Amino acid sequence: MKSFDQQTTSPLSSESTQNEFLLSFIKGEKKAIEVAHSVWQQVVQKGDKVLDATCGNGHDTLALIKMVSGGGGGQVYGLDIQKSAIEKTTALLNASFPHADDNKKMKETVELFLLCHSRMEEIVPKGSFVKLVCFNLGYLPGGDKSIITVPERTLEALEAASRIVGSGGLISVLVYVGHIGGKEEYETVLAFASVLPVDSWVCSKFEMVNRPLAPVLVFLFKK
Amino acid sequence: MKSFDQQTTSPLSSESTQNEFLLSFIKGEKKAIEVAHSVWQQVVQKGDKVLDATCGNGHDTLALIKMVSGGGGGQVYGLDIQKSAIEKTTALLNASFPHADDNKKMKETVELFLLCHSRMEEIVPKGSFVKLVCFNLGYLPGGDKSIITVPERTLEALEAASRIVGSGGLISVLVYVGHIGGKEEYETVLAFASVLPVDSWVCSKFEMVNRPLAPVLVFLFKK
Repeated sequence: MKSFDQQTTSPLSSESTQNEFLLSFIKGEKKAIEVAHSVWQQVVQKGDKVLDATCGNGHDTLALIKMVSGGGGGQVYGLDIQKSAIEKTTALLNASFPHADDNKKMKETVELFLLCHSRMEEIVPKGSFVKLVCFNLGYLPGGDKSIITVPERTLEALEAASRIVGSGGLISVLVYVGHIGGKEEYETVLAFASVLPVDSWVCSKFEMVNRPLAPVLVFLFKK
Repeated sequence: MKSFDQQTTSPLSSESTQNEFLLSFIKGEKKAIEVAHSVWQQVVQKGDKVLDATCGNGHDTLALIKMVSGGGGGQVYGLDIQKSAIEKTTALLNASFPHADDNKKMKETVELFLLCHSRMEEIVPKGSFVKLVCFNLGYLPGGDKSIITVPERTLEALEAASRIVGSGGLISVLVYVGHIGGKEEYETVLAFASVLPVDSWVCSKFEMVNRPLAPVLVFLFKK
């Protein structure tokens, strides 16, 4: 069993793996979420503060804990509006760090909040910035598909994210467009991103052209 | 002065450089054409046949010569509908390989054709496939801006490209949308890509969201 600090070495950190991520996405061999993790891995440093705006099943939260841990001061804020998501995330994190010492360190690193992502500014200490805010927009995988993130709250959340991300930081949005309301939410994200000033934001998107229901990756990089 | 074979080692081939290309694009530090070259570098092997559908000033043709050379059998077909583009490309290639031996090898590797890209099948030997067809759609940089690639011919060229690219090969399209007719051409490319069957093609696009006139990268990968 790996210790907490050893866990911080993700398979994604090997050069040869990252090297081929863009091509793998173009070949359809890697999913959008894998590309997103690869990008986060290069942006986020040990010791950074980051925020997972949509914990879902906890996989992104877990990946972020591994990225910020081991340097001292790393902090992951995890939010979800669904109680079942917070429960699933908690269960995944506990299962991933079963040893008492590792579990204690993990709990010092992450804080989970049953809260709408539009209220993220309430939990980040005033005056501090985060390196990454990530969104996984859509329904909770395996959960109630009638409970989805909605455009109005998402717009508020993106506005909040743009205020708490520091210079050199990233807002990463993975938009699932295949569910009811997904296209509208995607349009909301694009409308927000398209008017961010070019002197302080680089906004890019990556999408599949012949798979209209495939998730779209949107990155908002703060210069 | 480097010899012809030494020239085949491009700065793009270093692992650390390629490693950071996706992130550099997201940060706005690399241009779309640089990302395209990085992707080609990973797809194209020494000895491959490739086709530059729009030579322009010759920079892509030159990059491709470096990628296919050194393994024996490498071949670059270069097309342009404008005589001045063929002349500029010829001049760039000659200037890049000034020594007689290198120049001879270069000329054995590349063939330039004053021909519309919609007729590319006329120059690739029947029954043979290419690893890459690249398009740089728009006007000739520094040339006559009234002479642009037009949607009808581009559609025919994309159809031709889809027939001559072999399995594991790539159609790479860089679309400049900032000139008159650019948006229509972009729509043509997307309409073509969006209906390619998902079982044999992976079609992706990469674009800037808050710079609507920035060039868009479209990759059509043949499984």
